[in-house]
Amino acid sequence: MSALSQLALPHIPALAAYTPGLQPTEDGWVKLNTNESPYPPSPRVAEAVARAMGKDGASLRLYPPPTSAALRERVASVNGHGLRAENVIIGNGSDDLLNLVARVFCGGKSPLGFTMPSYSLYPVLVAIQDGAAEVIEFGRDMKLPVEKIAASKAKAFVLTSPNAPTGVAFPNTELERVLQSFGGLLVVDEAYAPFAGENAVPLLAKYPRLLVTRTLSKAHALAGIRVGYALGHPEIIALLDRVRDSYNVSALSQVAAIAALGDGAYYAGTIAKTKATRDAALAHYTRLGWFTYPSQTNFIFTEPRDARGETGPAVARSLYEFFLTQKILVRHFAGHPLTAGFLRISVGTDADMAAVNNAIASWHTTNAPRP
Amino acid sequence: MSALSQLALPHIPALAAYTPGLQPTEDGWVKLNTNESPYPPSPRVAEAVARAMGKDGASLRLYPPPTSAALRERVASVNGHGLRAENVIIGNGSDDLLNLVARVFCGGKSPLGFTMPSYSLYPVLVAIQDGAAEVIEFGRDMKLPVEKIAASKAKAFVLTSPNAPTGVAFPNTELERVLQSFGGLLVVDEAYAPFAGENAVPLLAKYPRLLVTRTLSKAHALAGIRVGYALGHPEIIALLDRVRDSYNVSALSQVAAIAALGDGAYYAGTIAKTKATRDAALAHYTRLGWFTYPSQTNFIFTEPRDARGETGPAVARSLYEFFLTQKILVRHFAGHPLTAGFLRISVGTDADMAAVNNAIASWHTTNAPRP
Repeated sequence: MSALSQLALPHIPALAAYTPGLQPTEDGWVKLNTNESPYPPSPRVAEAVARAMGKDGASLRLYPPPTSAALRERVASVNGHGLRAENVIIGNGSDDLLNLVARVFCGGKSPLGFTMPSYSLYPVLVAIQDGAAEVIEFGRDMKLPVEKIAASKAKAFVLTSPNAPTGVAFPNTELERVLQSFGGLLVVDEAYAPFAGENAVPLLAKYPRLLVTRTLSKAHALAGIRVGYALGHPEIIALLDRVRDSYNVSALSQVAAIAALGDGAYYAGTIAKTKATRDAALAHYTRLGWFTYPSQTNFIFTEPRDARGETGPAVARSLYEFFLTQKILVRHFAGHPLTAGFLRISVGTDADMAAVNNAIASWHTTNAPRP
Repeated sequence: MSALSQLALPHIPALAAYTPGLQPTEDGWVKLNTNESPYPPSPRVAEAVARAMGKDGASLRLYPPPTSAALRERVASVNGHGLRAENVIIGNGSDDLLNLVARVFCGGKSPLGFTMPSYSLYPVLVAIQDGAAEVIEFGRDMKLPVEKIAASKAKAFVLTSPNAPTGVAFPNTELERVLQSFGGLLVVDEAYAPFAGENAVPLLAKYPRLLVTRTLSKAHALAGIRVGYALGHPEIIALLDRVRDSYNVSALSQVAAIAALGDGAYYAGTIAKTKATRDAALAHYTRLGWFTYPSQTNFIFTEPRDARGETGPAVARSLYEFFLTQKILVRHFAGHPLTAGFLRISVGTDADMAAVNNAIASWHTTNAPRP
């Protein structure tokens, strides 16, 4: 290690940084690797941003509202269930909020708990804190390990529901079993909740040790503006606010998010369309004989089977690479035995999914047994 | 402390959070408290944002470029001196980058060094890290304590130059003396450098242990979009990138910053105007007999003197409060003996500064000795 890197805290040069999905800069890709919406955001968003910039962008000279106060109000009101602004914190994407959770609850002898496989950011946040992780492994059935979480001594446990990268959702009855037995803060990362049949928001009134995180990057088609939020007890929100950057959310992003959250009717349409496309794609993979988890998200986690009937990490890698030759980007998580044989395919438009299906058919011809 | 707060790491409920300047939501204020530009950003900014949003904001559905690659290129090229993209990191405001500095270099037995008075965010960043601060006090002459910094054992030392809240700049010859003697990373926080006669960028090629941070919130009139950057050795940049959030800068903010940095001619005009207004205001306060530090920033740090000839914390507070009654917002840093007798007044338009001068005259009539 060079003299410059030796100036850093010892854990920093050693940590494995988060690897985001590829963001190709050239056109022509069928981009199904980061679970973005294939549809544009509500048209109210661009109108609101243009209006907020004012003549010649004059409004941009001022700092944004530091607590995103108007957006907190809007988030509380659209989520209902008696939530108020004091139950809400806004993040520069939900990753910002997950980072705040790690900074408030994880360090020294306090581990951060999470399941594996799940969102691969969690171990990175722990490593940045030089903290410890308490990892609870799923079985292949992806059932929620309620007893193991209940027995955790972590001060905070993050659960992705519906899970990523599997797409499997955990019912509120199961979450309640955790909340009634686990002594720490349960953080339910609901990035994909708008595509699910149920969410944890109704549980907030009953369980002060529940924090729900959301993002506008997926269902709201606003990954570009970086807005997420968390819902919880005012005291938990206040703890997160203590370590939040004062001006963490751009003024234009606040305005865009307020506009988007005011157009539920538009998003009901794009979400319904995404779910229909998802279910059709899932049925297709199942007809191909591919094991596929039931998805309550805008992606599908499926175990490709080649024309010889083989599955496994090499087969998944082979299809991933074949997709690349067809300019189709999906995600392959090679690092865990429960994910290495699978691909995660974001739900695009019907045309995107037809391109995927055609590519699969072509791939099958490349690996069919010779007659 | 309640059961919920006891879940947090012990230092979190105890820390003093950063207090941002007031951001009034109603109109009619002469807002001279957070050093925003009184002029709008380059007109290219609003054009670029509108163009980037695309039809119906369709581009916003995609994640932003994770490393802000195009913006790094632009920053390198506008700063010259042989800098390349690998010498640049982009932050969600420069506060984001200062936070990364704290996370990489401050914790456990590694203190973060900084001078006092300076930007009041630094001790907050240290407290969030549960780290130690090595504080070097200025004297009233505000001369750079070169020998004391040189003797520091901190792995990173943050120096605001030109300083806030005093406005005093430190010449490169002094910075070089520090760089030649101090063994850690010298972080020169140059938020106000565009208003100064000199900056540390030419030193980067010679000193690998120098990091320069900048913001577009001040001279570039873009506080609303949250963009800052740091310039340094590629290995230091890589360390900061390890702990940076993958998508820390909004897509629209990246586009806005690229447009702004491409319009140097526009900003040369607004910066020259701001400096002229500053120097006229400073001359006025000096004529009033107020001790005022020479400013190389877009604010003035002055020691008000009432009509009885008194100065001090109570006098500064009295003028601060009188300004409030006139709907003029400035900043009073009551917490340090070297700042408590002063007010920091951002340089606004000539009309803003005339309003300040009129308010001062009115205030003098309120505290004039009875005949």
